Amino acid sequence: MFSSNPNISIIGAGNLATHLSIALKEKGYSIRQVFSRTTDSAKTLADKLGADYTTVISEIRTDSDIYIFSLKDSALPEILSQIPPLKGLLLHTSGSIPIDIFDPYSTNYGVFYPLQTFSKTRNVDFSSIPICIEACGEKQQEQLFDLGKSISRKVLDVSSDQRKYLHLAAVFSCNFVNHLYGIASEILQQQHLPFDILLPLIDETAAKVHSLTPFEAQTGPAVRFDENIINKQLNLLNDENLKKIYELISKSIFNTYKQK
Amino acid sequence: MFSSNPNISIIGAGNLATHLSIALKEKGYSIRQVFSRTTDSAKTLADKLGADYTTVISEIRTDSDIYIFSLKDSALPEILSQIPPLKGLLLHTSGSIPIDIFDPYSTNYGVFYPLQTFSKTRNVDFSSIPICIEACGEKQQEQLFDLGKSISRKVLDVSSDQRKYLHLAAVFSCNFVNHLYGIASEILQQQHLPFDILLPLIDETAAKVHSLTPFEAQTGPAVRFDENIINKQLNLLNDENLKKIYELISKSIFNTYKQK
Repeated sequence: MFSSNPNISIIGAGNLATHLSIALKEKGYSIRQVFSRTTDSAKTLADKLGADYTTVISEIRTDSDIYIFSLKDSALPEILSQIPPLKGLLLHTSGSIPIDIFDPYSTNYGVFYPLQTFSKTRNVDFSSIPICIEACGEKQQEQLFDLGKSISRKVLDVSSDQRKYLHLAAVFSCNFVNHLYGIASEILQQQHLPFDILLPLIDETAAKVHSLTPFEAQTGPAVRFDENIINKQLNLLNDENLKKIYELISKSIFNTYKQK
Repeated sequence: MFSSNPNISIIGAGNLATHLSIALKEKGYSIRQVFSRTTDSAKTLADKLGADYTTVISEIRTDSDIYIFSLKDSALPEILSQIPPLKGLLLHTSGSIPIDIFDPYSTNYGVFYPLQTFSKTRNVDFSSIPICIEACGEKQQEQLFDLGKSISRKVLDVSSDQRKYLHLAAVFSCNFVNHLYGIASEILQQQHLPFDILLPLIDETAAKVHSLTPFEAQTGPAVRFDENIINKQLNLLNDENLKKIYELISKSIFNTYKQK
């Protein structure tokens, strides 16, 4: 536990940094400073939080209780190597970066990874978002648990090794899924059909895996081994990349159900 | 409009046949007979509907007002070629079969395609399912519209050509999406992480495309052109087919955002 209401600095001003810092502020945390390389992003987020901002690494305040690094993965090592020494708890929010990235710079650190997709224009209810935490010690573990519990009902311990696989699973079930929605949307557009005709199907597909395993929930030509439809549908696709995606996923479905 | 409450025969006893015929019965339609090649399936569905059943094509009643053919696509041509002449309205429920499959056998026919995924153990609320209809004439068009409206708020005209593309879009946004959920589930299982940790992410990914286009909603390493994470994640995958799926979809996301 922190002795009193801790001060937080936010390093980064992207979608996750924005949504997370607003959720923390709403729970009464004091966000003191926002750092971003771009003035616009830094100022926009700082204004929302009633915080200061800076775009200069050497001007990052060194007396905050918690620093949340929420940056593109490739930016984190560079920032860490340039930042002044910090005594506060250092956290990053990345699925793919191990906890020990902080090891050369601090003895007080952890990971705070909210498993969700964040877009600028969309409000997010943090209370249902799983917060995956990992800490360098027991004290930090408790602090991270409390911080997580203040915004979410679900806080769980996930090791660096598990987290990178969790992130991979998230890429398949969110980023790649959304791209398939995009492919479907383009197919419909060419036929002058509205995308929203697919929404009940998209919703039911997501809802089904709340009560069935994806294995049980599978439907469609590939699981029925209906090569006639598969070949007809392949012929409807002009784009070679799309043809390959269609073929590979159909083959993968086919193999999954042949094996079991 | 039908002159009185029409009688319906159901040809097929799979998931769609089951859910659709139950929905129609609940709206007061009288389902007289179920045909399926397998006695178990025919009897199970007939019992639910309070209907007769048969497994013999020549015993299909010839005096029903509507026949709904809800079969595996490859089975429909064969059944049609063997069935006794029927005066009633012949309908199929397939995304990929054109309306004119009925042409050699009847002058009274149409297509009734509910755009949804159906699993045996899962209840479905038909009222929100888009029903895509196509008819051989104006009278049949009205009959199909009324039949559709009796179970769903959304009935729309979709031509045979549009419908095959709609079915293709449904395969991408439902069947393939569910397979990606399955891949994610296997990745988590190997890390002893529960699948339900992904459900808020899966739900939000589906919910986002109600208010953003899939193009606007895209997040993740590929849209950020983060090759570092992409390469790390590729190295986590042992299965060659999964590696290829990951590479192709990432490349496809990459190309989508490079172009625009």
